Amino acid sequence: MKRAQRIAIITERLIFNPNTFFTLTSFSRELEAAKSTLSEDIAIISDTLKQSGAGFVLTKQGIQGGVSYCPKYSPEKALKEVQAVCKTLNTPNRVLPGGFLYWSDILSNPAIIKKLARIVAGEFLNSGADFVLTMETKGIPFAFMTAEALGIPLVMARRMSKVYEGSAVSINYFTGSGSLESMSLPKRAIKPGSTALIVDDFIKKGGTALGMCTLMKEFDVQVAGMAFMLSQNQQQRFISGDISLMTLSRPSEAVPYVTPSSWLKDRVSEGEE
Amino acid sequence: MKRAQRIAIITERLIFNPNTFFTLTSFSRELEAAKSTLSEDIAIISDTLKQSGAGFVLTKQGIQGGVSYCPKYSPEKALKEVQAVCKTLNTPNRVLPGGFLYWSDILSNPAIIKKLARIVAGEFLNSGADFVLTMETKGIPFAFMTAEALGIPLVMARRMSKVYEGSAVSINYFTGSGSLESMSLPKRAIKPGSTALIVDDFIKKGGTALGMCTLMKEFDVQVAGMAFMLSQNQQQRFISGDISLMTLSRPSEAVPYVTPSSWLKDRVSEGEE
Repeated sequence: MKRAQRIAIITERLIFNPNTFFTLTSFSRELEAAKSTLSEDIAIISDTLKQSGAGFVLTKQGIQGGVSYCPKYSPEKALKEVQAVCKTLNTPNRVLPGGFLYWSDILSNPAIIKKLARIVAGEFLNSGADFVLTMETKGIPFAFMTAEALGIPLVMARRMSKVYEGSAVSINYFTGSGSLESMSLPKRAIKPGSTALIVDDFIKKGGTALGMCTLMKEFDVQVAGMAFMLSQNQQQRFISGDISLMTLSRPSEAVPYVTPSSWLKDRVSEGEE
Repeated sequence: MKRAQRIAIITERLIFNPNTFFTLTSFSRELEAAKSTLSEDIAIISDTLKQSGAGFVLTKQGIQGGVSYCPKYSPEKALKEVQAVCKTLNTPNRVLPGGFLYWSDILSNPAIIKKLARIVAGEFLNSGADFVLTMETKGIPFAFMTAEALGIPLVMARRMSKVYEGSAVSINYFTGSGSLESMSLPKRAIKPGSTALIVDDFIKKGGTALGMCTLMKEFDVQVAGMAFMLSQNQQQRFISGDISLMTLSRPSEAVPYVTPSSWLKDRVSEGEE
């Protein structure tokens, strides 16, 4: 097998399985190549991905050595992707009666969601999160793709516990609009002492997010961070320390307007790597 | 830029964007290489992916020529992946009180779901489906990843219509257990005259699946096919013509047992490509 072929196979494997560790030994066996040769292949892949803004390859040296692919967009690429989504969201025909913004189609569009999820994942590569937690329903694809990019599982909290999921832990929480809701997780869904990354599509006051934090306390789970696709500007919030990709404001009561979040914009101006 | 680098970049782009068309012109501009050179690069990638069982690259000739990546597992690879999932599902500690099988963790595990979704997608590459339809909640990741692999959007039907999604079409349907449920979709979620692929996690009698078919009729949408991750053996079904990856049987009332579906096994014995 020639270099070009090995690079095609290794790149396919790494890109399809982000944040998944592959030993050099397994590649060496499959591709019938010396580890030194494979190391050269991987160096080329790593440099090339980095230059194209798609992320980088982490290398672990030694006998148990191997590689994993970390998707991480540059701040410029992240901002550019989010700007494109904002432009789509700001088309006038998306405004529904009541001033609501129609964006369900965006939330379940793989071509868009997987890019946005990689921006969030890139921020939490070293957070130690063992799983992503989300609350059903609309944010599931975004949370799932964030988990995918981080190479960890997703856990979905439900409004009600289901008989087919066994014993469950439920909590009650107040939404931002003041109504009392329930949130439930099967007991066996989470290992006590692990670490969660909370991901959802939308945050306003943060009632649901606070509910998820409360639920994690019940499981003796730490929260490594909270990330949302869209945040609505609010004076009073139930939570802090979260990041969001886009901000929803209302220049007039009936017209929603979406812009990249200041977090995203600041990263570019600060020249953060 | 050398061949090895070009192959790394093109492979990354194709694998991250399955069933998405890239023109040779755009690659030629970005990689500063002649189209004839790129055609050679792509031939290497295509042959290599095919040999490794990861799918193939479709090439469109001519001035508007370009390429797209079609993920398609060989029947053997598909069966092997599903067998591994069955083995996980058949561990005794997954049996819950009432004889229910705990598998929520599998349904939201990206490492597993994306492989299973590619098996379904490989079957519907030429189905003409414009979108994948699923009914909330548990099957969303599987349906989303099937849509991702096919390069089309996902549409999620909900139990209730939401004010923030505008006017909706709702239908009532009977579940297999005889209860009456509702299913709703925003009017603007679907273009009349398009084609749907129905994907869900589980099918028993097919009440929900029939409901989705009824809903599609309301939208003047054709159904290209129906695919499920797990099917429970039933004498009387509301629908037919669907495929599933795994079959759930109950050797004794309290013990669920999961095996690869006969559809998957037959493909291997028939030597289908």
